[in-house]
Amino acid sequence: MIVEGCPLRTIWPVDGYVEIIDQTRLPHAFEVCRVDTLEAMAHAIKTMQVRGAPLIGVAAAYGIALATRASAGDAALLRAAEILVATRPTAVNLRWAVDRMMKHLHSLPITERADAAWIEASAIADEDVALNHAIGNHGLALLRDLHQKKNAPLNILTHCNAGWLATVDWGTALAPVYQAFDAGIPIHVWVDETRPRNQGASLTAWELGQHGVPHTVIADNAGGHLMQHGQVDIVIVGADRVTGTGDVCNKIGTYLKALAAFDNNIPFYAAVPSPTIDWQMSDGLREIPIEERDADEVAWIQGRTRDGAIMQVNILPHASPAANPAFDVTPARLVTGIITERGVCRPDQLRSLF
Amino acid sequence: MIVEGCPLRTIWPVDGYVEIIDQTRLPHAFEVCRVDTLEAMAHAIKTMQVRGAPLIGVAAAYGIALATRASAGDAALLRAAEILVATRPTAVNLRWAVDRMMKHLHSLPITERADAAWIEASAIADEDVALNHAIGNHGLALLRDLHQKKNAPLNILTHCNAGWLATVDWGTALAPVYQAFDAGIPIHVWVDETRPRNQGASLTAWELGQHGVPHTVIADNAGGHLMQHGQVDIVIVGADRVTGTGDVCNKIGTYLKALAAFDNNIPFYAAVPSPTIDWQMSDGLREIPIEERDADEVAWIQGRTRDGAIMQVNILPHASPAANPAFDVTPARLVTGIITERGVCRPDQLRSLF
Repeated sequence: MIVEGCPLRTIWPVDGYVEIIDQTRLPHAFEVCRVDTLEAMAHAIKTMQVRGAPLIGVAAAYGIALATRASAGDAALLRAAEILVATRPTAVNLRWAVDRMMKHLHSLPITERADAAWIEASAIADEDVALNHAIGNHGLALLRDLHQKKNAPLNILTHCNAGWLATVDWGTALAPVYQAFDAGIPIHVWVDETRPRNQGASLTAWELGQHGVPHTVIADNAGGHLMQHGQVDIVIVGADRVTGTGDVCNKIGTYLKALAAFDNNIPFYAAVPSPTIDWQMSDGLREIPIEERDADEVAWIQGRTRDGAIMQVNILPHASPAANPAFDVTPARLVTGIITERGVCRPDQLRSLF
Repeated sequence: MIVEGCPLRTIWPVDGYVEIIDQTRLPHAFEVCRVDTLEAMAHAIKTMQVRGAPLIGVAAAYGIALATRASAGDAALLRAAEILVATRPTAVNLRWAVDRMMKHLHSLPITERADAAWIEASAIADEDVALNHAIGNHGLALLRDLHQKKNAPLNILTHCNAGWLATVDWGTALAPVYQAFDAGIPIHVWVDETRPRNQGASLTAWELGQHGVPHTVIADNAGGHLMQHGQVDIVIVGADRVTGTGDVCNKIGTYLKALAAFDNNIPFYAAVPSPTIDWQMSDGLREIPIEERDADEVAWIQGRTRDGAIMQVNILPHASPAANPAFDVTPARLVTGIITERGVCRPDQLRSLF
């Protein structure tokens, strides 16, 4: 996508290292940082310098490649895989990408593994771009239909960031948005702020703004009210894991928006590349591990002071604890459809589509 | 209630002036400020130095009393009433209190009005305390029943601040909480942060902490997930206006929590003194005016820096607009019951209760 006029991805290899956009500094500062070890990549994933299910899969793949710089032996690779998989528990792409890297490298002699690791990680990155572009195509058809029925600008609500910053490029939920915008379909995006980490306000708003897509940031509380008053035509979110039965695990708060969409007869879609689908699971509520993140993420909010400095402020009383579950599960019964690289289907049709 | 060991109300008259707790400074600073004119009171209501439907009703009553210091003539009173009613459109208590003051004062000779205004405003304040205490009694019985059935600590979820800071004393939704806590029933309160103004994180958490009630602050997004996992036994919220048919207008985001409670078979109650009931209205979604507040409330967040200074930071990209509807309406079909000073009833029984 485009940042200040230049085409860019969220992650790319340079001379045996990896560079990433540091997403913890957005939207206040655009900074690229170099990641040069396995440990640094694990740290980048854990602290959410890179985040978004597809992107952390690719980042973990590059993490394996970085690990081969020290050693490409079986024990070293296994240790690298363990470190990376432990960084974040909910997104299934992370394990998928690590498993794929391990399987590929184990089949090769040790001396060939380092080169092969970089090639395979880059292949996963390129495939992510292609998957998301295909999701965009299928979602575009959906938005075009909706627009033809409505014959007025479409209001799309999204939660968290499932844009190009959450992937290598294009995004999942936002791929259809960008393609619709580029195709001249009049759209406007309601951007859920997405507390506690504000990925909507800081990342989705920023990337939509960079691309020129009309959007408005709202508190996470506002979506239901907007839906009650006919101001939302469709909800599209990404996902961190989708069960084979179509339960959608995504950023905390997604379930509340799905309930409101259902209550107001508004279509609710998850846009999901196949590496996000966990075919082993059939009951998302019981089976998907939900990451509990540090309560400080609720207490401390980062922003820009009137002087332009980036600063964190604490919003809680000194003595008040906080809890921070990072994801929730939207049962398939509330999901209108899943937009995948193979097309759009009802949640109960996922298995037959793949 | 108790602040740093001393009993206190949120508003009180002193020598012909009014003093209030400045709620825009909490939880970082506890400051009392003097309000000495009608205009200053209108400003205090508009900027939410005083807020909460019952409290702004009382504040407006004192605003009329302050106006009589300049003139108690019909024209002056009418102008005062107009200024006060225009400050905030959604809470019906504001208009109720102003109407009551006007009716009372108009029946008196001009020379008697100033004294009568202070007496009537203080009567409204005292009545608010009594109403809330009665709500607390009825809610206590409800919580006692729930606790006997569960035989484990009760988890109560609340949204925004409907504690004593939203009233003169006791609170509406929190009156049962305080009474249950004082009666030794083991409780824990999930406090919705309540973006964009964070009344949960800054006010509810602070007042629960002052009283020693166990609580945990959560992002507004988290409640649905907690309900799905059996971590919420009851939801109790306040209201800014309830229709005669039991539709509950309350802080934006309440509707989403009501949907989640309904979806998980968790009882959802609104605690409401009768001045909050608008008997003229029967369709909350269509009829209740929803205040649209300044988008800067979404963009700028106030907190405490690591140095202890109170500072505001902007969380949005420079070019991103925001929208800020302040309330939503929860349809009666999602409401288990209304807790009033006369007892607890189903929403469709409100008219027969009163």
